[in-house]
Amino acid sequence: MIGYVSPSTGRRVRAVLFDTMGTVVDWRSGISTAVGAFADAHAITLDPDEFADAWRSYYQPSMERVRSGQRPFAALDTLNRENLDAALRSHGIDPGAFTEAELESLTRAWYVLPPWPDSVNGILQIKPDFIVGPLSNGSTAQLVHMAKAGGLAWDVILGADVSRAYKPTPHAYRAPAAILGLDPGEVMLAAAHNYDLEGARRSGLATAFIARPTEHGPGQQQDLAASADWDLAATSIIDLAGRLR
Amino acid sequence: MIGYVSPSTGRRVRAVLFDTMGTVVDWRSGISTAVGAFADAHAITLDPDEFADAWRSYYQPSMERVRSGQRPFAALDTLNRENLDAALRSHGIDPGAFTEAELESLTRAWYVLPPWPDSVNGILQIKPDFIVGPLSNGSTAQLVHMAKAGGLAWDVILGADVSRAYKPTPHAYRAPAAILGLDPGEVMLAAAHNYDLEGARRSGLATAFIARPTEHGPGQQQDLAASADWDLAATSIIDLAGRLR
Repeated sequence: MIGYVSPSTGRRVRAVLFDTMGTVVDWRSGISTAVGAFADAHAITLDPDEFADAWRSYYQPSMERVRSGQRPFAALDTLNRENLDAALRSHGIDPGAFTEAELESLTRAWYVLPPWPDSVNGILQIKPDFIVGPLSNGSTAQLVHMAKAGGLAWDVILGADVSRAYKPTPHAYRAPAAILGLDPGEVMLAAAHNYDLEGARRSGLATAFIARPTEHGPGQQQDLAASADWDLAATSIIDLAGRLR
Repeated sequence: MIGYVSPSTGRRVRAVLFDTMGTVVDWRSGISTAVGAFADAHAITLDPDEFADAWRSYYQPSMERVRSGQRPFAALDTLNRENLDAALRSHGIDPGAFTEAELESLTRAWYVLPPWPDSVNGILQIKPDFIVGPLSNGSTAQLVHMAKAGGLAWDVILGADVSRAYKPTPHAYRAPAAILGLDPGEVMLAAAHNYDLEGARRSGLATAFIARPTEHGPGQQQDLAASADWDLAATSIIDLAGRLR
């Protein structure tokens, strides 16, 4: 059998799908830059990196309300917009001081997050031999704009609004595989987050860890290394391309 | 306002989505080549072009059974496979003479249809200014494989299995627009078939006709020219790229 065969699934991998926020793009510097420009424009004093972290801190709890059934599926665009209000309030800033267009424009910073330096070329190196795409909690519209802005040459983009499920819910991993006509074991998730790889493995996917030790800034504590025997562990997407050969 | 504004919708077009079978790829020569190889391998005497037309003749009636509610949604892959049995029988050939793997392999010819000579470069010329993708009755898996095989640089691929509707049902046109975060009037359908453009216009989309006068072979009678005042009418996708500037 040619190509890459996953030791854990025993199947030849046909598609390599990537967690995106943190794994492919550097959400923290992208959001921090946008927050800094917003603060300057409105003469607000704040630390853009710290505010980016605060905004991001509502990300998992807001998705958890969907996963747990407390609210019906809402796309990440909606959650990011709601979470901006919460982050502003947590800094003593009234969201009502801004127009909806201003807040919406700042939220759109999540559409144009910059790729890590190895992402564009790493994806191009994997693409000749595998279907490549995101497997993200982001929306399809968000991921399409991000790909065009950053030059990510995905073959296919199926956002969480297509599966209407957030990782690590099993359907979020299995629906994209099914739409591609593949068994879960023929799909590899590449991600910088061990909890995401745990979810993928539980759902039957092959797994690859990509280290992103500065995703959360210089003091990052979590996900510095693989926490389990994932099929592959790489230091970048270019490194992953080499390991898949 | 910069960019292309549709006279019929009054909106700036953000995405140009293409009918695929016939408009972007030459299904007839692709299927004919595969049928010819199949006939040779099994020592069957038939006219590959004529058989391709016969196979294709079951295409609309099989989708119509889904559109009319006579059967639940089934992906085009399933319909193409069923229609192969019908085409073989109509030629006095028993499908039972072949293994399921052989018939499935022949049906997969629909996954690797060759692009028309202008398609790859035409799409590349439109891509810097618009989101580009198929808006086809094909499945996502089919369209992903076709794009990789033919070098079609789509930004996004949402097959009919995502909307679970076949054109010209309005939902088939409106669902991809909604997933892209766009109003229908911000999406243009480019197609070689006037009935498809009629469906798109009824659903609120902008429209562009692309002439493919030999899609059905040298004796083609239908769709030789635009039948209505579509926003644009072009002789190729490269010509369309110029008209969108």
